[in-house]
Amino acid sequence: MTRPPVVVLAGGVGAARFLRGLVQVVPAEEIVVIGNTGDDIWWRGLYIAPDLDTVTYWLAGVADTERGWGIRGDTFTAQRALDVLGANAWFQLGDRDIATHLYRTDRLSQGAPLSMVTAELASSQGVATRILPMTDEPVTTRLKTDMGDLHFQEYFVREGARPLVNEIYWTGLESARPAPGVLEAVRDARIVLIAPSNPIISIGPILRVPGVRDALLSARDKTVAVSPLIGGRAIKGPTVALMRAEGARPDALGVAELYRDIASGFVLDSVDGELNHSIGELGYSVATLSTMLDQVSDARMVASAALEVLSEVAAA
Amino acid sequence: MTRPPVVVLAGGVGAARFLRGLVQVVPAEEIVVIGNTGDDIWWRGLYIAPDLDTVTYWLAGVADTERGWGIRGDTFTAQRALDVLGANAWFQLGDRDIATHLYRTDRLSQGAPLSMVTAELASSQGVATRILPMTDEPVTTRLKTDMGDLHFQEYFVREGARPLVNEIYWTGLESARPAPGVLEAVRDARIVLIAPSNPIISIGPILRVPGVRDALLSARDKTVAVSPLIGGRAIKGPTVALMRAEGARPDALGVAELYRDIASGFVLDSVDGELNHSIGELGYSVATLSTMLDQVSDARMVASAALEVLSEVAAA
Repeated sequence: MTRPPVVVLAGGVGAARFLRGLVQVVPAEEIVVIGNTGDDIWWRGLYIAPDLDTVTYWLAGVADTERGWGIRGDTFTAQRALDVLGANAWFQLGDRDIATHLYRTDRLSQGAPLSMVTAELASSQGVATRILPMTDEPVTTRLKTDMGDLHFQEYFVREGARPLVNEIYWTGLESARPAPGVLEAVRDARIVLIAPSNPIISIGPILRVPGVRDALLSARDKTVAVSPLIGGRAIKGPTVALMRAEGARPDALGVAELYRDIASGFVLDSVDGELNHSIGELGYSVATLSTMLDQVSDARMVASAALEVLSEVAAA
Repeated sequence: MTRPPVVVLAGGVGAARFLRGLVQVVPAEEIVVIGNTGDDIWWRGLYIAPDLDTVTYWLAGVADTERGWGIRGDTFTAQRALDVLGANAWFQLGDRDIATHLYRTDRLSQGAPLSMVTAELASSQGVATRILPMTDEPVTTRLKTDMGDLHFQEYFVREGARPLVNEIYWTGLESARPAPGVLEAVRDARIVLIAPSNPIISIGPILRVPGVRDALLSARDKTVAVSPLIGGRAIKGPTVALMRAEGARPDALGVAELYRDIASGFVLDSVDGELNHSIGELGYSVATLSTMLDQVSDARMVASAALEVLSEVAAA
């Protein structure tokens, strides 16, 4: 890679929708994604990395963008057979998706680190963007709720994000190190983008990997966050509930407050224009536009705005 | 189970074809299968038990009897996706078959013994026959060949049974114990049948599990073997080559010689009638008929002959 990379801190679908636009304006091979692995889960003996897979499938053009998970046109033959075997199947896996997990689990059992396997999966699916897990060590996002202590996927998928969340915590952080390339990518980046992902559950784990926050503090002047909240609502997922659980203000200003130490640019939706001034007072350069990401053309506009908000200020 | 069981020592397809006839003349729930696990293999992180699955699928009526492995009408979506991911796919798995292996691997990882998981898989597929692995501990059949030291599946599936076999050996036997119910079944059996399976590779491992041979020595008077060789040839698989590698005479008489300590009845094909006398001289009561098992009606005749060869003598 000759040019310094564009680095993107990424969760799942929100990040994937944003990346689908970013690759329209930045060559895919100049982008480095640092992906959340806090949602990863062992399921029926398979190691599943939902956020890494979502990003990979979307960039490979095979994602089921309607459903929001898995592969478009996938079949569920194995899953139906598992149901017959009496498996408690709250986590649904398509047959092609299972192949991904079989490949990953097998490589991990051979001793390959997750970062290597993730690169192999991206490469074999024709994805030129470099996708790094935040860490090769197991880090798990867990929630203390009124339905007990749950893995994030139990809370989100099995319980439909309905439990009342009292506390969010992580296991494995003490022994986690940034995956190879993560710190270098942040250091060398020409710009760091924080994708419109859940700041608590998706971006939060990345920031908690020892060493990552320090690297991002040093990169503040070249870091831009895109708000995942529009008019105080997330397009998908329990962002608002989990921000509330963490005591954060559940709107774009709350997101800006969370990132103020590590980002100096902020992109928010036009409907949140009244927050523009308050976010600016936090020290941000702000860009305001429609941040809906349903169409690739929309995502491209948002990506362009994120790339330009800091340079426009510098040029002004 | 009120009546003493009919116990069957079983390998894969040969045993499954025989069992398909046996369940026509003995109530399925009065049959106990003791199955070979020496061919079991870890593949892409899945624990696969080919012989146990073959027996289960045939008895459940879902086996692909033409192809000789897997489930009839299964799809190979995950397998094709694995191929795209660059997996070296010499071992083919259908999607429904994968569900079996996912279920088994997951249960094993939870600490359930193989015998329990095997019973669960049989039960959930409506199989009334009790299917026991020979042992819950890992025992592996390996071959020293002119292409190196191979797992049985590498020799049989990957290399098409072409390598020259110099030696057959097993790992894990020292710490293996008969699975719960195995010794009791042999002791309590009203009759023990050795299915027409490869005596070296399929029945051999069962006999090698510490304690099993002793139990069978005591059960000799009620044990009947069915020859897997017809006119010196096996219907399927490398029986002849592997008997030669073990220094055994590669025909029905050679099989009879291998079992003379543990069986007193022997069923062989009419085309091997000239061996009848020699086998009788080994101390066997012999029944001779067509032992082709292609049709269920054929298998039923062979099963009846095996059940009756000792009682006919006793009655004579």
